[in-house]
Amino acid sequence: MNSPTQPGLTETRDDRFARGLVKLTQIDGDAGEAVVARVGAIAPDFARYLVEYGFGDIYSRSGLNLRDREIAVVAALTALGNATPQLKVHLNAALNVGVTRDEILEVLMMMSVYAGFPAALNGLFAAQEVFATRDAAA
Amino acid sequence: MNSPTQPGLTETRDDRFARGLVKLTQIDGDAGEAVVARVGAIAPDFARYLVEYGFGDIYSRSGLNLRDREIAVVAALTALGNATPQLKVHLNAALNVGVTRDEILEVLMMMSVYAGFPAALNGLFAAQEVFATRDAAA
Amino acid sequence: MNSPTQPGLTETRDDRFARGLVKLTQIDGDAGEAVVARVGAIAPDFARYLVEYGFGDIYSRSGLNLRDREIAVVAALTALGNATPQLKVHLNAALNVGVTRDEILEVLMMMSVYAGFPAALNGLFAAQEVFATRDAAA
Amino acid sequence: MNSPTQPGLTETRDDRFARGLVKLTQIDGDAGEAVVARVGAIAPDFARYLVEYGFGDIYSRSGLNLRDREIAVVAALTALGNATPQLKVHLNAALNVGVTRDEILEVLMMMSVYAGFPAALNGLFAAQEVFATRDAAA
Amino acid sequence: MNSPTQPGLTETRDDRFARGLVKLTQIDGDAGEAVVARVGAIAPDFARYLVEYGFGDIYSRSGLNLRDREIAVVAALTALGNATPQLKVHLNAALNVGVTRDEILEVLMMMSVYAGFPAALNGLFAAQEVFATRDAAA
Amino acid sequence: MNSPTQPGLTETRDDRFARGLVKLTQIDGDAGEAVVARVGAIAPDFARYLVEYGFGDIYSRSGLNLRDREIAVVAALTALGNATPQLKVHLNAALNVGVTRDEILEVLMMMSVYAGFPAALNGLFAAQEVFATRDAAA
Repeated sequence: MNSPTQPGLTETRDDRFARGLVKLTQIDGDAGEAVVARVGAIAPDFARYLVEYGFGDIYSRSGLNLRDREIAVVAALTALGNATPQLKVHLNAALNVGVTRDEILEVLMMMSVYAGFPAALNGLFAAQEVFATRDAAA
Repeated sequence: MNSPTQPGLTETRDDRFARGLVKLTQIDGDAGEAVVARVGAIAPDFARYLVEYGFGDIYSRSGLNLRDREIAVVAALTALGNATPQLKVHLNAALNVGVTRDEILEVLMMMSVYAGFPAALNGLFAAQEVFATRDAAA
Repeated sequence: MNSPTQPGLTETRDDRFARGLVKLTQIDGDAGEAVVARVGAIAPDFARYLVEYGFGDIYSRSGLNLRDREIAVVAALTALGNATPQLKVHLNAALNVGVTRDEILEVLMMMSVYAGFPAALNGLFAAQEVFATRDAAA
Repeated sequence: MNSPTQPGLTETRDDRFARGLVKLTQIDGDAGEAVVARVGAIAPDFARYLVEYGFGDIYSRSGLNLRDREIAVVAALTALGNATPQLKVHLNAALNVGVTRDEILEVLMMMSVYAGFPAALNGLFAAQEVFATRDAAA
Repeated sequence: MNSPTQPGLTETRDDRFARGLVKLTQIDGDAGEAVVARVGAIAPDFARYLVEYGFGDIYSRSGLNLRDREIAVVAALTALGNATPQLKVHLNAALNVGVTRDEILEVLMMMSVYAGFPAALNGLFAAQEVFATRDAAA
Repeated sequence: MNSPTQPGLTETRDDRFARGLVKLTQIDGDAGEAVVARVGAIAPDFARYLVEYGFGDIYSRSGLNLRDREIAVVAALTALGNATPQLKVHLNAALNVGVTRDEILEVLMMMSVYAGFPAALNGLFAAQEVFATRDAAA
């Protein structure tokens, strides 16, 4: 069980935002800042929440390493199948934090068992695009 | 567009939690505290996030009244169809903040158009249970 | 509870279609007729059902105003996340019946709590497109 | 393409309801009437729509036989996975209109490919219940 | 019930692949081979599993004819709504194994009842594209 | 990329079943055999496919360790939210292959960001049940 006396209860939103932005950049590089900027153009408050809650609170927790977190997110977004842009961001993030291409393919193939072959196939095609973009940029 | 200079950026997590708890109680009454206690028994940190983000941040925003918020949540949970316990909490919440029973039925019937008759039917059966429980307690 | 002796049981399909078409135009303007025409090109019967049931029956009911109905539909389609074209139609409809841009953003942000950030983000990007198209046409 | 000049445009809601009720009873037997009565207890108007649109309009169309229709519905509800009560009604309906138990199992097994093994398994367990109930009643 | 002593338990993966490829070509024509080649370019093992399990095991079973199988798949993919490329493949497959255009439209219209009008509409628009492509190629 | 000349193409279904059963028992213990027996009672062929494809093919692959695989599956089933029995099996499996309770809670909390708080809450309540059952059996 996680501790009821967790640290950080006196942290401000600005503290969480600052830590979230560091974490986001560590995971997503420039692409992370681009998403925040894009969201900020339509809903600045929501860009804050995304960084504060998603990255300052959740991704910054110490109980699970970033590699495991990205495996979980890639699996979930592939299974849901209705958030391809976010899946691509996290396929890149997974690679950035040390998940290999072959490991990503294994995660995607597993989704054929749990969410069906179409979900797995669309995940594989997204990965193919992400890998190709990274190869072209290399 | 919402303002990029939103208030509250120096608020602490404890501030947000306190405001969230007031908002939660305003909306859900004792049932809200019961959910938080239940979640806290398995994952105390998550009970905090639920109150801080869900109620301290989002539900406390001034741009949409509570009645409209509950209409949105009842519609979404009915359409998703995989979160019946939470739907029941929000059917009660909707009644608590002034949505009438007939208006709730209208929202649920609309979901037949957008998410299909099974989703709408399961929403109606959840409403039937909620209404009956309230009648029995009255 | 809604009344078991509802009016209109002797209405013909043509009556419901005519009322639905008026309601559709009231809500969606020319875009509504365009959808019906597009559907009619592939499945004329289904274009009828869409107008008759969706608009002649459901949207024409008096128990919930159009503003509340559109809040419900925008929330549901954002949460489902697999019907972007229909979400855009209803973002426009919401604006047409008096939901403000800021209120729409509030509904979309709420969906981060109930359906996750990717669903909310894709809703926000759809709203951004709809707002921009309306601005360009203004 | 279906015909733009479909019959029945001067039919009243009562006509469609009467035809729908006959169709519902043909497909679902007493279970169909029980569902309508149950829905009618919470939302009488919606019980009407369910019979009128679902059975009077759609199920009564001549372009696809009832056996094919039930195969489609069993597949869809198994894939969606969030409407078990309705799936059981349609597993019974499929048997009533001539789909064999073995054919139903084939449809459910196919869903492992398209929606994943958990969806298929839950469909199989629902079928097991339906088959056992019918055996017990025989 | 299907038989516990099913044939083929000594078949090799190569046997299943060979049979699956024949079945895939029978159903999907050149498009089937194109999908396998596309998947093989990113994940060759998964292209094998898709053919071996999806077509060598499941589609090759004798208990349900191909026409019924495609009706089930078209219904399921339309209801799920998050796999449009695969839906188009199976709309073509359905036509290839003898489901008529009008019967496909009936299946898609039924989905309005079980998964909502947006799902049905997006299925109809996918069918419109598939029909147009086939007409252009004829 | 995985290798196009993968091993095992001359393996028989019996080979894959035998290996799958060992893997299933390694991951799920007696609970695994119980699921196979339960499925076998309604659809023996499908029990074979589940073991052969799910465990003999996919889970037996060497490219990702079991711990990572279970993190992916727990995340996906929590996000989908419509397969609670299978989620519980995999919460147990995750514990069996070395994911700690705290790590599981982290995975579940992450799902609040990607699939919403209701999905995360229902995952947490499933975990609570699984943990309690294991404590009672200890």
